[in-house]
Amino acid sequence: MPPFRFELLAEDAASGARRGRLHTAHGTVETPCFMPVGTRATVKAISQDDLEGLGAEIILANTYHLFLRPGHELIRALGGLHRFAAWPHPILTDSGGFQVFSLGALNTIEEAGVTFRSHLDGSQHQLTPELSIEVQLALGADIIMAFDDCTPYPATAEQTRVSLERTERWAERSREVWRAQGTGEAALFGIVQGGMYPALRREAAQRQVERGLPGYAIGGVSVGEPRELSYEAVAAAVAELPRDKPRYLMGVGTPEELVNYAALGIDMMDCVLPTRNARNGLLFTSQGPISIKNARHARDPAPLDANCGCRVCGRYSRAYLRHLYQSREILASQLNTHHNLFHYLDTMRQLRHAIGLGQLGSWRAEWSYNRSTQTEWPSRFSAQ
Amino acid sequence: MPPFRFELLAEDAASGARRGRLHTAHGTVETPCFMPVGTRATVKAISQDDLEGLGAEIILANTYHLFLRPGHELIRALGGLHRFAAWPHPILTDSGGFQVFSLGALNTIEEAGVTFRSHLDGSQHQLTPELSIEVQLALGADIIMAFDDCTPYPATAEQTRVSLERTERWAERSREVWRAQGTGEAALFGIVQGGMYPALRREAAQRQVERGLPGYAIGGVSVGEPRELSYEAVAAAVAELPRDKPRYLMGVGTPEELVNYAALGIDMMDCVLPTRNARNGLLFTSQGPISIKNARHARDPAPLDANCGCRVCGRYSRAYLRHLYQSREILASQLNTHHNLFHYLDTMRQLRHAIGLGQLGSWRAEWSYNRSTQTEWPSRFSAQ
Repeated sequence: MPPFRFELLAEDAASGARRGRLHTAHGTVETPCFMPVGTRATVKAISQDDLEGLGAEIILANTYHLFLRPGHELIRALGGLHRFAAWPHPILTDSGGFQVFSLGALNTIEEAGVTFRSHLDGSQHQLTPELSIEVQLALGADIIMAFDDCTPYPATAEQTRVSLERTERWAERSREVWRAQGTGEAALFGIVQGGMYPALRREAAQRQVERGLPGYAIGGVSVGEPRELSYEAVAAAVAELPRDKPRYLMGVGTPEELVNYAALGIDMMDCVLPTRNARNGLLFTSQGPISIKNARHARDPAPLDANCGCRVCGRYSRAYLRHLYQSREILASQLNTHHNLFHYLDTMRQLRHAIGLGQLGSWRAEWSYNRSTQTEWPSRFSAQ
Repeated sequence: MPPFRFELLAEDAASGARRGRLHTAHGTVETPCFMPVGTRATVKAISQDDLEGLGAEIILANTYHLFLRPGHELIRALGGLHRFAAWPHPILTDSGGFQVFSLGALNTIEEAGVTFRSHLDGSQHQLTPELSIEVQLALGADIIMAFDDCTPYPATAEQTRVSLERTERWAERSREVWRAQGTGEAALFGIVQGGMYPALRREAAQRQVERGLPGYAIGGVSVGEPRELSYEAVAAAVAELPRDKPRYLMGVGTPEELVNYAALGIDMMDCVLPTRNARNGLLFTSQGPISIKNARHARDPAPLDANCGCRVCGRYSRAYLRHLYQSREILASQLNTHHNLFHYLDTMRQLRHAIGLGQLGSWRAEWSYNRSTQTEWPSRFSAQ
C-alpha cells in the first residue's frame, strides 16, 4: 500500500462538498482541512505543542524560504523537516514558484526556470522545476508541489495561455524528477493554472489529470481578482478533477471563503490570513471581524468571542488584549494567533461534522447568519 | 487571621538559608522563590497558562508602566490587576521609584516626590509616596512596596546617607497611606537602602524594622557594583531583619546569585534576566550559559540542555532554535523564554528541596560543579 492515499468518506447531496481523509507516512488528515502556514518551518507566534492542542493535523512550509535559510541540505542532514521543525505530523511544501516572483528581486523567467536575487542578502539563485523538487524531497514533506508559473491578475487570455503552457511543461519536468528521485513517501500534486478563464481552467485541469498524480492543486486564485471570478475559476477546474483524488486550493481565504470553496468540492486550503491578521490585531469571531486596537474595547471585560471555546476566550478580556496590542507586547501576537487559528480550525471541524451528517446546508445557514453583524475591519483586510 | 502571613518552615544549619511559605489572599508561595517580571501586566513572550505550567506562583508587575498605560483607574474599574491580567495567583507590585529614574526623562527629585516625563508621550507626571501607594492599592497586588529613593552606584557615604534618610521619610509616608486606605489585603514591604556601606545597610534595616511591616525588601543592589560588595551589603542588612518576616532582594540575579543570596537568608527575588536574555538568545543551562546565535549550534541536533526537563528541551534541537533566532521568528522569544524561566524556577525548586532536607551544602556543591564548563556569553551579559 502506498504511504499516500485519499479516502473519500462522504459526499454532500446538495453541493460539491466532500468529507475525506488523507493518509500519509506521518499520519492522517481529516478533510476538508485548513493548513496553517509555517513559512520558515514555524507557524508564526505559536508553538508546535499549541498547534497540536488546537487540532492542526498538517502544516505548510515554504520551499523558497528554507532553501535560502537554513538551506535544504542542512535540514536533510538533520533528518528532514519533520525532525528539524519538531513536527512529526504531515507537512506540505510549496514549490517556491510563487515566492521567487513575490519576494525575490530582479527575477527573470526563462524556460529553464526563474533566476532571482535573495530577499535576505541579494545573492543570485536560479530555481528550476528540477531543483524545486530536489529541495522538496530533501526537506522530506509528505505532499510536495510541482513548480508552476503563477498567472497574475489581470492577464489577457494570451498571457494566461503562455503561463498555462509553461506550467504544463514545468509540471512534466517536476514529475520526472519526482519519479526518478522520490522515495515514494512524498506525494506530488500538479497545479492547475488558467487565470480567470473557465475554459482554460478546464483544459489545465484535464491536462494535469492525465499525469495521474496523487493529488491536484488549484493555483492563481486570490491574486487580486473579484471573488465571483475566483469561484467561477475554481468551479471550472474542480469539475474536471477526479472524485478519488484530493483537491487543494492554494492560498485562501477568509472563514466564509473556506466554507464556500469546500462546498465547491475543495478538500485542502492554506492561508496566512489568520496568523498575519492576528499580528495586526484583526481577529475573527462568530459574529464577524474585530479590530482589537479599537478604543471601544479599552474597558470591555468581555471575551473576544463569547461563543468561542479557545483558551484565549476562556481566560482574557478584550480590555487586556487591547492593552497588550497597544503596548506592542509579544503576548498580543501569541494570544491573537492562538484565537484566530482556533477559529479557523474549529470552523473546519464544524464543517466536516456537518458534511458527515449530511447537514451542510442547514449548518451553513446557521453559521453564516451572525457573521456580518460586526464589521470592524478596514475593507482592505477582508480579502487577501 | 490576616490574609498575609509568612510561615518559616526550616532553617539551614550551615548557612542563613530558610525554607518558608507566603500566605496571601490569592494563594501561597513557597520560598525561597523567584518572581518572573511582568512589567506591563504580562511576562514577556509567555502566556499565563504556560506560567502556571512552569510552576510560577507569584509574578511582579510594574507600577510605573501600568500607571502610564492603561492607567490604574482603568485596571481598578475592571476588577484589579489579578482579573485584568488573568492571573488569579499572588502578585507583587514595585513602587515605581526605580523606573521614574531609569525610564522617565528629565526627572527631578524633591522632598514631595519625583517629577518626570513619560517615556511614552512626554507628558509630565509627579509620583509621590502617597500616589505610589494609592496606585498600588488600586491595582490590588498582594504585596506592595514603599516608595523609595534607589541609591546609585557609586555613591559617597554622604550621598548614600541623604538617599537613606529620604527613603526613611518616604517609607513613613507610604505607611501612612497604606494604613489609612489599605483594605488589609495588600501587605506593605519597607525597602532597605544604604548603598555599599554595611553600617548604613544595618542602620537602614533597623529603622525599617521599627515600622513593624509585613515584610522587608533590600533595594539598590545589582546597580553596577562588584558582586563582593553586593553580598556584603545584603548580609549586613539581613543580619538586622527579623526571623519571622519575609526578605525580598530586588532585581537579582543569575541562577548562581539566586542560590548565593538564598544562602544569605533571602526569601524572594525577581529579575528580568531570564526573560530579557531569552529574547537576546542568551540561554541558561545546567552546564553554563549558551548563546544560541553561535554558529557552532547550526547543525547541532542536541537539545539546549540534556539535563533539563522543560518542554523546549524535550522537543527542539539547538539547530532549530538557532534557525528561529537567526530568522527573527517570534517563536524564538517564546521558546527561549520558556526554557530560561523553567531553568530559574526549577533551580528554586531544587534549592527549596535541598533546604527542606537539610542538605543545602551538598546540593549546592553538586549543582555548581558543572556550571562553569560552558561560558559562551559575552561578559557584559553575565551581570545585569
